[in-house]
Amino acid sequence: MSVNLAILGAHGAVGQEMLKVLAERNFPVNDLKLLGSARGAGAEILYGTRKITVEQVSDDSFKGVDIVLSALSSDLTRTYTPMAVESGAVVIDNSSAYRMDKDVPLVVPEINPGDAALHKGIIANPNCTTIITLVAVNAINRFSPIVRMIASTYQAVSGAGKEGPEELREQMGNYLAGNALENRVFKHQIVDNLIPHIDNFTENGYTAEEMKMVNESRKILHSPDMMVSCTCVRVPVMRSHSVSVMIETREDVSVEQAKELLRNAPGVELADDISAGIYPMPIHSSDKDTVFVGRVRKDISGSNGLNIWCCGDQVRKGAATNAVQIAELLVNERRAASC
Amino acid sequence: MSVNLAILGAHGAVGQEMLKVLAERNFPVNDLKLLGSARGAGAEILYGTRKITVEQVSDDSFKGVDIVLSALSSDLTRTYTPMAVESGAVVIDNSSAYRMDKDVPLVVPEINPGDAALHKGIIANPNCTTIITLVAVNAINRFSPIVRMIASTYQAVSGAGKEGPEELREQMGNYLAGNALENRVFKHQIVDNLIPHIDNFTENGYTAEEMKMVNESRKILHSPDMMVSCTCVRVPVMRSHSVSVMIETREDVSVEQAKELLRNAPGVELADDISAGIYPMPIHSSDKDTVFVGRVRKDISGSNGLNIWCCGDQVRKGAATNAVQIAELLVNERRAASC
Repeated sequence: MSVNLAILGAHGAVGQEMLKVLAERNFPVNDLKLLGSARGAGAEILYGTRKITVEQVSDDSFKGVDIVLSALSSDLTRTYTPMAVESGAVVIDNSSAYRMDKDVPLVVPEINPGDAALHKGIIANPNCTTIITLVAVNAINRFSPIVRMIASTYQAVSGAGKEGPEELREQMGNYLAGNALENRVFKHQIVDNLIPHIDNFTENGYTAEEMKMVNESRKILHSPDMMVSCTCVRVPVMRSHSVSVMIETREDVSVEQAKELLRNAPGVELADDISAGIYPMPIHSSDKDTVFVGRVRKDISGSNGLNIWCCGDQVRKGAATNAVQIAELLVNERRAASC
Repeated sequence: MSVNLAILGAHGAVGQEMLKVLAERNFPVNDLKLLGSARGAGAEILYGTRKITVEQVSDDSFKGVDIVLSALSSDLTRTYTPMAVESGAVVIDNSSAYRMDKDVPLVVPEINPGDAALHKGIIANPNCTTIITLVAVNAINRFSPIVRMIASTYQAVSGAGKEGPEELREQMGNYLAGNALENRVFKHQIVDNLIPHIDNFTENGYTAEEMKMVNESRKILHSPDMMVSCTCVRVPVMRSHSVSVMIETREDVSVEQAKELLRNAPGVELADDISAGIYPMPIHSSDKDTVFVGRVRKDISGSNGLNIWCCGDQVRKGAATNAVQIAELLVNERRAASC
């Protein structure tokens, strides 16, 4: 069973990583279309031994396509997703455009794979920080439901696309040379700085990025009453997002129980041996698909709480890998249906 | 009224900053002794127009000294502080050695200046992150006592002394050049990384740095029952510490009330106008004495909670400035006594 696949936004950081992940995971690709804006059209990209020319996306780009992996901005996604669905494709969309629509499943395959089957043409890929945090706490949530979660994030510059790491690298050079710094991607300098502002501010004083953690977490975990607050901060790290998270569970979960759950949790690598100086760090999780989890300890400020520190590659598990895993769910579903 | 002053550890980052702060604040210095280890002895340091030779500290270094500003490691402080106290000096100690001793006041002048007068020869300067966080939340705590505080820190490399920023700078250069990185000060690379491990681990899985926030906060705020948990993380920023903090107060405090309190809080600069993109960042607070506070909003995960983001210069308000402010309290006390 081979799939006719299209990648929308093939030129971006996530689009490029999707190609890498598809090849690594031997995804059963039959036809592969690479689609992009007028600016990117005409470029040639290698996929294994195939040389594929990027086509400018149009309303007839999706004929015969089974699955579209879309890595566009929310605005562009709202233009092209309906065309693709109309043509009969299933769109796995990495933007935030459709995530909270009640007809659109929001899926992390380690957590709620069953939701994927409920799609009506669109499956949304969650926010990167939300994916990483939820993969880290999922096994504990299954053991005893999380009733409250307070997260502070340490988000890499890769979250701003290809240009984020380029800007940090350029600023590092100019910083060392004592030159003026130029901010194009970020509102403020990011070298030697932290920016507590990702995405736009909303009415309650939280940013849209912070509210994604609140709302998407509830949807993915099927926990509409879970209480969540979040502070999102951009840090001068290239690629892995990290999160300091406090979770309160309905029943008390001991540190040993939590570690045992994490040891067996899908998509998780427990990195927690403080006596040996082992804990998750961005340098460990970058270019990996697993979420590294550690510093597991009782929250000493309340009851039934655990403090956890986790790191995950934002471009991979936080975006490209999760999307490809959703595509794999669709393939497996078709395989099962054709048996 | 002029003071015979000694600086212990005059060569370190904090010792150097103390000299700068003393001069800036026109501290009434009469005699000024600069004391250090054998390694630093003999060096000449300018204080205003005076050229002062660093002396090797010994048991008779403290004769005639009124106040010692000590910026030594905890080990060394335990050796020299008793000698200084024996000689009749008051030691303002920046290390953690005596902070939790019940006979040693732990003072942030904006918060508990009255405690300084209760000293028996030693006054402790609190942990840098604790000072910055508590200055940020002090006015709210006075209005309605904080019952719970959950903090995640973003701590600059300056917290490791002079060598911290040197190592980050060196690693930035080698990172850009594609060279191998050398870790001398930090256990792991700090460029392009985050290290969730500051000071040693303790039995409950928290680090000593994290437990300082817990225990010192209770002592400074005179709130022995306040519940606190903390996650301390080293970030690739040169000099200002930042903290994402959730506080729950006994009564509900509105965002507008909190902002009004912060606007009038000593040592605080309210930097909170999200519509104009204004919030605290390390580049604002570095080389300043005020703690920048912003992103003030209701904690939407519970009742009576506020989320706050604050940044403060770790070397100045987190260490040198706070120590000099304590010395000023002592001078004012003597002035009042001699009236």
